[in-house]
Amino acid sequence: MKTYFDCVPCFVRQVLDSVRMTTDDTRLHEKVLREALSMASEMDLNQSPPAMAQKIHQFIRKMTGISDPYLDVKNRFNKLALQMYPDLRMRIDTSTDPVETAVRLAIAGNIIDFGVNSAVESSQVERTIAESLTDPFDRESLEVFKHAISRAEKILYLGDNAGEIVFDRLLIEQLPCEKITFVVKGGPILNDAVMEDAQIVGLTDVVDVIDNGSDAPGTILENCSETFRRRFDQSDLIIAKGQGNYETLSDVDKNIFFLVMPKCSVLARHLGREIGSLVLSGSNHSHFAEGS
Amino acid sequence: MKTYFDCVPCFVRQVLDSVRMTTDDTRLHEKVLREALSMASEMDLNQSPPAMAQKIHQFIRKMTGISDPYLDVKNRFNKLALQMYPDLRMRIDTSTDPVETAVRLAIAGNIIDFGVNSAVESSQVERTIAESLTDPFDRESLEVFKHAISRAEKILYLGDNAGEIVFDRLLIEQLPCEKITFVVKGGPILNDAVMEDAQIVGLTDVVDVIDNGSDAPGTILENCSETFRRRFDQSDLIIAKGQGNYETLSDVDKNIFFLVMPKCSVLARHLGREIGSLVLSGSNHSHFAEGS
Repeated sequence: MKTYFDCVPCFVRQVLDSVRMTTDDTRLHEKVLREALSMASEMDLNQSPPAMAQKIHQFIRKMTGISDPYLDVKNRFNKLALQMYPDLRMRIDTSTDPVETAVRLAIAGNIIDFGVNSAVESSQVERTIAESLTDPFDRESLEVFKHAISRAEKILYLGDNAGEIVFDRLLIEQLPCEKITFVVKGGPILNDAVMEDAQIVGLTDVVDVIDNGSDAPGTILENCSETFRRRFDQSDLIIAKGQGNYETLSDVDKNIFFLVMPKCSVLARHLGREIGSLVLSGSNHSHFAEGS
Repeated sequence: MKTYFDCVPCFVRQVLDSVRMTTDDTRLHEKVLREALSMASEMDLNQSPPAMAQKIHQFIRKMTGISDPYLDVKNRFNKLALQMYPDLRMRIDTSTDPVETAVRLAIAGNIIDFGVNSAVESSQVERTIAESLTDPFDRESLEVFKHAISRAEKILYLGDNAGEIVFDRLLIEQLPCEKITFVVKGGPILNDAVMEDAQIVGLTDVVDVIDNGSDAPGTILENCSETFRRRFDQSDLIIAKGQGNYETLSDVDKNIFFLVMPKCSVLARHLGREIGSLVLSGSNHSHFAEGS
């Protein structure tokens, strides 16, 4: 997905939110704000929004000297989600369609996204998770998704944020884990999950976890490690979580299912869905249709 | 008032709204957006927000070749407000405190501000006007305002937007008109009222009207004509309507009453009031206190 004009003011606001979260030094706020405006004035709008976000966050980390500004936020939401885990696991196990319940929860967990909203509250997460169990949901896509998983041999599950990965774990526990490799980011970017988060929430005990070698808040293939790209090519099914992965992979010709809760009007319009809705969207079902 | 960091993303969004209103040419949208970002990256934040808006709107007019992009909007809201005039005039004339009612309506008319919100609807104007008659209102400031007017000899009433000036007319009709000179902008900027609007709504029949010689969406004194500046200096009371006039004059040492409906969080915070509230705020009552 390209960067739309409407992404630009939102990007400037996000930069301001991020640098304020990183330091109280208003001179640094101003320096980063001016640099972001200058970068944005010359940005390639054919790039996806995460490409620009990656550059400015590298700049913020360099300016502030803080390598992982969102560490506290990540730990807080890992903890919150782990507290919710036992109850949600029971709900899944006792539901009539455990995979559907787990998919709903995994999408709802995408609310924990500090890229779009720098003031996510735990109460909001709890409400979103509760509502996701009864929100409208596209069961037809779910059946296609289930079928794709049963036929796939190598599945790459691209994670998004810390905290959210607990909900990914709940879903993966309902799927054939042995087929799945979970992917975290190669370095700190916003509140995106890195290897340490996967260890903290016990995901490494459930499934193979690798990192993608990149610190972009999405999956910019040419920016990822060669190892990751090989795994990506070899996989016959990609499960991509969250807005950043959608923005960077929506135009990639691959069998991808996007699990995302759209949190801005540009993405909602692009998906043809409402802000805050549960989206399970296959990018290219024809890969399977052609083979069957 | 200086430009706050939070004004910057909002400014970028406004520029995008404005250029879209002016032309459908997306190449021009991009050109203006990039220019605005570049300007903003080097802007003097000690300037008020209207100083930057003035520059970018001069650029938009130059790029599009359209000298008055908001002409249709201005005509539409002049017409709407004129249709509301007879009923509102009657309400004022039959109210227990006609000046209070007229002040409430004049502030509520400030909702017609395409600088902050490029999608003002007529239904929103009608609702705001209706609500203003019963909204909470600071009667103490009103008494100070009335007293200041009765003592003043030369009053300059700085107008804001087209349409809104009909509500200014309703207020001026309750005041000693002979003391008052009404001020419009020297050239088209956003939907700010110019001389033609004052003529259309009959304000020129009620009161002396001059222009300030500037096309900034506020009153940047050093940018105004010498004639206007002389009148400003000679006046012993200034009535300043709207957000742009507040942003440009809040630090000026002069006896000014601001009549404004704050429409963004930065201004609301600066005033210590809620967004959408009726604000009648004196800047410097000591001018009168000292003389009395």
